[in-house]
Amino acid sequence: ASTHTIAVLAGDGIGPEISAVATQVLREAGDAEGVRFNFEDSLIGGAATDATGTPLPDSTLEACKRSDAVLLAAIGGYKWDTYPREQRPERGLLALRKGLNAFANLRPATVLPQLADASSLKKEVVEGTDIMIVRELVGGIYFGQPRGTDTDSSGHKRAFNTMVYSEPEIERIAHVAFQLAQKRQRRLCSVDKANVLDVSQLWRDVVTHIGKQYPDVELSHMYVDNAAMQLLRNPREFDTMVTSNLFGDILSDEASMLTGSLGMLPSASISNDMPGIFEPVHGSAPDIAGQDIANPMAMVLSAAMMCRYGLDLPKVAQRLEVAVEAALEGGYRTADLMSPGMKQVRCSELGAILAEAC
Amino acid sequence: ASTHTIAVLAGDGIGPEISAVATQVLREAGDAEGVRFNFEDSLIGGAATDATGTPLPDSTLEACKRSDAVLLAAIGGYKWDTYPREQRPERGLLALRKGLNAFANLRPATVLPQLADASSLKKEVVEGTDIMIVRELVGGIYFGQPRGTDTDSSGHKRAFNTMVYSEPEIERIAHVAFQLAQKRQRRLCSVDKANVLDVSQLWRDVVTHIGKQYPDVELSHMYVDNAAMQLLRNPREFDTMVTSNLFGDILSDEASMLTGSLGMLPSASISNDMPGIFEPVHGSAPDIAGQDIANPMAMVLSAAMMCRYGLDLPKVAQRLEVAVEAALEGGYRTADLMSPGMKQVRCSELGAILAEAC
Ligand SMILES: CC(C)[C@H](C(=O)O)[C@@H](O)C(=O)O
Ligand SMILES: CC(C)[C@H](C(=O)O)[C@@H](O)C(=O)O
Repeated sequence: ASTHTIAVLAGDGIGPEISAVATQVLREAGDAEGVRFNFEDSLIGGAATDATGTPLPDSTLEACKRSDAVLLAAIGGYKWDTYPREQRPERGLLALRKGLNAFANLRPATVLPQLADASSLKKEVVEGTDIMIVRELVGGIYFGQPRGTDTDSSGHKRAFNTMVYSEPEIERIAHVAFQLAQKRQRRLCSVDKANVLDVSQLWRDVVTHIGKQYPDVELSHMYVDNAAMQLLRNPREFDTMVTSNLFGDILSDEASMLTGSLGMLPSASISNDMPGIFEPVHGSAPDIAGQDIANPMAMVLSAAMMCRYGLDLPKVAQRLEVAVEAALEGGYRTADLMSPGMKQVRCSELGAILAEAC
Repeated sequence: ASTHTIAVLAGDGIGPEISAVATQVLREAGDAEGVRFNFEDSLIGGAATDATGTPLPDSTLEACKRSDAVLLAAIGGYKWDTYPREQRPERGLLALRKGLNAFANLRPATVLPQLADASSLKKEVVEGTDIMIVRELVGGIYFGQPRGTDTDSSGHKRAFNTMVYSEPEIERIAHVAFQLAQKRQRRLCSVDKANVLDVSQLWRDVVTHIGKQYPDVELSHMYVDNAAMQLLRNPREFDTMVTSNLFGDILSDEASMLTGSLGMLPSASISNDMPGIFEPVHGSAPDIAGQDIANPMAMVLSAAMMCRYGLDLPKVAQRLEVAVEAALEGGYRTADLMSPGMKQVRCSELGAILAEAC
């Protein structure tokens, strides 16, 4: 039996509850396929700051580097909002992405037929939506230098950040996006602001150039403001999208809201040579932490993405995906997705149902 | 009778058609209030590039500076997409904003009761939505230096832009936003990405500081990715929003799509000491240009914003607004908003109906 070491970062809020479900379900699905998972817990986020003074202890980064994949639940909480910048949970997340060179963030926004009513958009608009957003994750304005605060020529305080991309940075994310598009509907929309920004013009030029190597993928370009509109007007128009770190942050959150079910959405953040990070799109939900009412589905689907994109275990991935679908079909819903006629279950109950279905 | 000189920039595509309606209706409403408008046409955008080689001829900027307000229709078209950067229509628009120091862009996103069904969002989610987005328009990454393209230490091409704000730039837009909020529901949400960007942290600090002068306005802060979600989840939660140039570009387009009726949305771009620019949110729609089927309502409502915010003629503004409402109530719709039971009218027909109703 193959053995895989998974760094489990439960983080804050509902993190521990949904991690428990994900590891339980993974174990079950692994057993069925003759695959062993070795789960190693490490601290990140507020929990790490509380215990060690920093949101990403060296020991955690080392454990992640040693692992085959990182399964991350969620970080953050009101408690740490007033902490000094370097101790805040999100710094740990940014440092982890950078530390593992996880440059390609894959965020599917899929409207599941069982949940099409959950969207704030009309059912006939969103039904059938299946978008994969590929967001550059370790470059752009998030990490660009110079950045900081100084005083301008008239003596006033100024602050600045640099949005910067180099050709190789754009090339590698473009390849990931084109290759994903090849496995999907072969349509790739690259989003930028090339009518205003130099960095977007280079982005557009490089993506266009790389596109020549993928003649089977239909490439289009869209300005980010227009993309923010078209996602609402006609989400089905999109198949695969690729964009920079900041635009991807905004558009992927907008797209996830199309589905109306944040509790269902996984993500993968991968590099070419280091373990990938797999985590749900939703946050740590401190207001419901510890009550056993969180929705663990996004976390389980993140584990599925881990098996598929990080560990090359498509059969285990499929078991998890099928289990989630079966639970939805069976009418099981956590509180966030509860609707008339459905059966409301707790986080741990859903864990048992999913494990059973594997 | 007071006389007001209006620089009319019809621009490209449907621009001339909707400008004709707006000036006709303004004239009518002015007559009724004893106000005279002096309309002076100038070139901008692709039309200006074709005639003079540049999208904002000096003579146009001069005419705008001499005017009491600028009424702009729309710019752009496929034809100019392949022109050199400096000759493209949007360059003219950016130069005009900068030339008139129009730092505060006001973009209402109002869901009109008669059109609540036009949205791709569920009626119960959007109905009653009335958001005013205040976008900083002459700073931030749109104009920040340094910008350009160079070669990095490993010999690869790189391109970069600078997102920068100084304290005074943030202060003046904050004042505009707080004062608008005072006239509305007294809730202001400032949008930034302070968890990642230094420039956003300064933005947040300065807006918070200015807020002390407006104790009657309830100030909140939201990250831009979350704002992109909350606009879809619960748009009624927002009253007035204030944000930087780039975030405002994206969020105001997203918000305008909530209304489902881009053909109804006006905007104002104002400074403290120069004529303001008033223009519809929609583009030049080259595909329907010259067919007399465009919707002139956003242009007429832009003229109303001009009267209200630029010329201090609230009574004329109200006549235009009432005329638009009456036309909607009367069931008149241009093609873009046509629905069963309504009466479809051409652009010029609607002009006559609106003029009549003034
Ligand atoms: C927490 C924050 C730093 C992070 C980001 O902006 O990347 C989050 O919004 C995300 O999208 O994962
Ligand atoms: C045309 C373009 C330069 C412009 C902008 O980005 O500001 C437009 O999108 C707008 O919002 O008015």
